[in-house]
Amino acid sequence: MIEKSLKIYQSTKNKINALNYAMYMINWDSETEAPVGCLEERSKQLGNITEMIVSLSHKKTYVNALKDIIANKDKVDEITWLSASKEFEELEKELKVPSKELVNYQILLATSGQTWLEAKQTNDYKHFAPKLDKIITWQKKYIKYLETPNCKGYNVLLDTYEKGFTEEDYDKFFDTLRTELVPFVKEILSKKPIDDSFNKEYYPIELQKEFAKYLLKVMCFDKTKNVIKESEHPFTTGYGTTDERITCHYYDHLLTSFIFSIIHEMGHATYEKNCDPKFDDTALSGGSTMAMHESQSRFYENIVGRSYQFWKTHYPILKQTFVEQLKDISLDQFYRAINKVENSLIRTEADELTYPLHIMIRYEIEKKIFNNEVKTKDLPKLWINFIKNI
Amino acid sequence: MIEKSLKIYQSTKNKINALNYAMYMINWDSETEAPVGCLEERSKQLGNITEMIVSLSHKKTYVNALKDIIANKDKVDEITWLSASKEFEELEKELKVPSKELVNYQILLATSGQTWLEAKQTNDYKHFAPKLDKIITWQKKYIKYLETPNCKGYNVLLDTYEKGFTEEDYDKFFDTLRTELVPFVKEILSKKPIDDSFNKEYYPIELQKEFAKYLLKVMCFDKTKNVIKESEHPFTTGYGTTDERITCHYYDHLLTSFIFSIIHEMGHATYEKNCDPKFDDTALSGGSTMAMHESQSRFYENIVGRSYQFWKTHYPILKQTFVEQLKDISLDQFYRAINKVENSLIRTEADELTYPLHIMIRYEIEKKIFNNEVKTKDLPKLWINFIKNI
Repeated sequence: MIEKSLKIYQSTKNKINALNYAMYMINWDSETEAPVGCLEERSKQLGNITEMIVSLSHKKTYVNALKDIIANKDKVDEITWLSASKEFEELEKELKVPSKELVNYQILLATSGQTWLEAKQTNDYKHFAPKLDKIITWQKKYIKYLETPNCKGYNVLLDTYEKGFTEEDYDKFFDTLRTELVPFVKEILSKKPIDDSFNKEYYPIELQKEFAKYLLKVMCFDKTKNVIKESEHPFTTGYGTTDERITCHYYDHLLTSFIFSIIHEMGHATYEKNCDPKFDDTALSGGSTMAMHESQSRFYENIVGRSYQFWKTHYPILKQTFVEQLKDISLDQFYRAINKVENSLIRTEADELTYPLHIMIRYEIEKKIFNNEVKTKDLPKLWINFIKNI
Repeated sequence: MIEKSLKIYQSTKNKINALNYAMYMINWDSETEAPVGCLEERSKQLGNITEMIVSLSHKKTYVNALKDIIANKDKVDEITWLSASKEFEELEKELKVPSKELVNYQILLATSGQTWLEAKQTNDYKHFAPKLDKIITWQKKYIKYLETPNCKGYNVLLDTYEKGFTEEDYDKFFDTLRTELVPFVKEILSKKPIDDSFNKEYYPIELQKEFAKYLLKVMCFDKTKNVIKESEHPFTTGYGTTDERITCHYYDHLLTSFIFSIIHEMGHATYEKNCDPKFDDTALSGGSTMAMHESQSRFYENIVGRSYQFWKTHYPILKQTFVEQLKDISLDQFYRAINKVENSLIRTEADELTYPLHIMIRYEIEKKIFNNEVKTKDLPKLWINFIKNI
């Protein structure tokens, strides 16, 4: 019996893996270079692929094979058992949602990215609001499907994102942040600000790319396994341990953006690359949890990337690249500038100290969204209020 | 009955389309940027996807649905009927080959590209020969599966490539070429060669890319539907009428390579882009035949791209881009140089007159391969012989 289950499991899993690999490729293409004109075609194909994944993984024979494997821990190898268990856990949730809705949500997401990009580039929230509203509506429905007596409302989403964490945990965490960190930030902000005006000089993108090459080498970028490209919003993606890709965004009047994006994303990429290859093509691939992932990227960015020792070695090279712009800026000035605390409006450009406040605001906003206390159209107002009254 | 067949046809075709779209994305990635380290993983996934396509399209219910649609021409719309007919025609061939072999061949092709690249870059034919030999062996087996009393040997492959054409046709065609074109080429080659030494000066790639931008605009490159990237060997690929992608290769000591690649590939891309969108997602998508496709690209390259009128307008811009390198080269000199006839060794860099001779040699070599008159290891020797004795 278990042999039959293993056979069904492996042959279905091979197909699901291939389809996930296809999704990975299509999404990477879509974020980094696909022409906007093919959006409709691409969304249709993404919908078709999602439909195939859903129909394969929801098949009774597959679900039963998973159950059989989980029940026979002593008869299967450890990795298979762990992978099947993780898949089943996720599948149990998914099975509560009608397949058609899972597919439509993927199509919605596929078309939303472009709308978000247009809205961002024209600074027009109204353009994106209808899509965002549909996403929120879907998430609220998703909550309804998944709610249990022990896990309700926003907690359903929190648990999906980082298993085991609840509003109660986060409230406690952010309360500490509010009482301890906010006064400290305010104290710093009351002092004479550090001069980082050099950061907003003109930095030709070609030269930024030249320094990026150097920096990537420093961060152990391995061109046999890594790819770097540009995208509106920096991110890391990958498949298994042999293919990790990062993006950054070059701004011609902002020196530090691409630098800390590269260091941050290389944290994610390095984490995935250094996973044990025995997890490749299993549900255990891609790192353990989102929190673990982010701990790696932020360790790289803040503990390594904003340290004096790091720049003692690498600042001379940066100075060589931007001779004119940095000629009056000493290592000490640079070091202080990249650690400057300020009321930034952009999360990904935020310093180490105010970054958590962005997360706190995001959390408070999401709580209000899923407690039905704010309408999608009023989100910008709410956000500004939070920023002002922190 | 026909309604049921149409339903089976459309739902299966949707899946096959999505998988073909995935193949398109994976192959594009693979040719233009995938890190070499993920080759094994990628080949595995390509194999899985091929297996899914084969298993979907070989299903009895699908084949029967196709037959039913073809038999009911009056009950289905024209596009569906034509698409089903074309699919069935190709499927009938495929069904003669064991599925497992179709899948293994795709995996073989997926891993061969990288070996070819390595062999090319190190000028080491022996490195590629074993893979090439496997490909040839597979093609010979494929011939055996498909042979009919009326279509045997190499003709099977010729018919697959361009339907209806046989060795007899090509022999006649190349005989004319041999008797008419070869003496003419020899006559030209006996004269004082045109000086095109400027073409081998140093042309910084950044400046080539700048002119490429201009040239793409001239060729009606539409960034909402087109993408350009670099690859070892220039090619065009795409999906439907909303997504056509081309590549070129920049050589820092060869001015004309990227120029004529771009013009040539934009011929392919423009042809596909201008197809009727009603063919999208059907078997009629992607242009009618290979010959028609190549007629478009070569029309762009030779009739448009090597004409005096074209460069009368655009040569001044090229001169502005490469002030130093082209300062002594007049429009007339440039025009003569890009139409220079010479014994080139590289097909894709060949002039209009000697290009067909490359095709002739390729044809003669393939004939020998599939008549078992040459071993894979001896192909370079054979090629050199042909080149010398033309």
